Amino acid sequence: MTAKPCLFTSPSAFPNPQRLRLFLHEKGIADQFEEHVYDMSPGGEQRQWRHLKMNPWGETPTLRLADGSILSETAAIVRYLDQATPGRRIMGETPMDQGLDAMWDNRIWVHVLYRITTMFHVLHQGLGPKLELTHNPAWGEHCRKEALAHAGLVNQHLSDGREWMLGKDAPTFSDITLATAIAFSKFPVNATPLDERFEHLDAFWRRWQQRPAFQAAYADRNSGVTELDNPK
Amino acid sequence: MTAKPCLFTSPSAFPNPQRLRLFLHEKGIADQFEEHVYDMSPGGEQRQWRHLKMNPWGETPTLRLADGSILSETAAIVRYLDQATPGRRIMGETPMDQGLDAMWDNRIWVHVLYRITTMFHVLHQGLGPKLELTHNPAWGEHCRKEALAHAGLVNQHLSDGREWMLGKDAPTFSDITLATAIAFSKFPVNATPLDERFEHLDAFWRRWQQRPAFQAAYADRNSGVTELDNPK
Repeated sequence: MTAKPCLFTSPSAFPNPQRLRLFLHEKGIADQFEEHVYDMSPGGEQRQWRHLKMNPWGETPTLRLADGSILSETAAIVRYLDQATPGRRIMGETPMDQGLDAMWDNRIWVHVLYRITTMFHVLHQGLGPKLELTHNPAWGEHCRKEALAHAGLVNQHLSDGREWMLGKDAPTFSDITLATAIAFSKFPVNATPLDERFEHLDAFWRRWQQRPAFQAAYADRNSGVTELDNPK
Repeated sequence: MTAKPCLFTSPSAFPNPQRLRLFLHEKGIADQFEEHVYDMSPGGEQRQWRHLKMNPWGETPTLRLADGSILSETAAIVRYLDQATPGRRIMGETPMDQGLDAMWDNRIWVHVLYRITTMFHVLHQGLGPKLELTHNPAWGEHCRKEALAHAGLVNQHLSDGREWMLGKDAPTFSDITLATAIAFSKFPVNATPLDERFEHLDAFWRRWQQRPAFQAAYADRNSGVTELDNPK
């Protein structure tokens, strides 16, 4: 028996578990959890009863604390852990910084990452019936267009020379969401590499690759992104 | 000149401004803001340069503080105001309650409210080119199906007799998002009234209608929902 809280999660190819993993390494608490990595494709292990009884939404990541309580949804788990654990506040220190980080996270998550994720699901039909079978190429191309348009606005925000979205000396949660969006944009099915289209997103992506937290979060070599899985 | 912070917002027919308005009345601070209500349809005033220079995403609500700083995205504005203003914490008091509220808000926002909003935009073509012209009825029906499936899971959560999502004696932010989702589901174009399909959502909707904060938030009689705009 272990007293460690358990994270039910997925390989680094999957964006939401990866956002949490980047947070855990940035916060310096990744070793405080037992990680159960589901085999996602094509069986959809997280949509089977054992997981659905913990989380009826069938999503990863899901956190089970030592007392048996369950918390799911990436931003919610991060919100809890960021406050309940000592260390730098990854979601912002002051109320205004927390507001600004939530603003950028929402914009990037909704209009860039979620668009790319939806594009993936409506174009790719190989994940099986537990995960997605809705085929809608027209909506996929709409999502690609939206992701590009909004990535352009994020690129504009970074064009004043700031290293991270809030202009601080370390990344916050919105930076983590943006890094994950760039990674998933490079996934072969999506094939819309944001770092190859936007100069400041390219520099941002290279900055992340230098960070030990980033290298640790992608250490499973299972991201589906060539440069992360086969580093020079 | 006023020293009050200014909210750029929309009539109560629009879900995100309405979520913020419900929060302001629940928190008891609605009178601390000057509200500039845009004429949204069909001109898309919030997508014109005057607004885009404050918020390049062209969204409402947007908050301009007395010092000129700008904050946008509903959940971000609420996050800031909930911490920066005295009173009951609408997003939860403890780190775990904040996590649970964020979990339910995310589930309800993504899988119910945002699906209904997307369905609205891809089915209805009358808002003009500034707001939406993408026509995709198949995706609209997919969104309707998803909203219904996930509303069923929320209904199941409420079936143990709890009045509000977290089982406390007052609503939190996820309850506000659920109320807004039910209201927008009843909008004529959407025509998927969740309160008429799910018993516990019906009781939840009736509970909200008794709250003074809810009555104040819909006092503009401009929600597009008959029972709110013509109360008995």
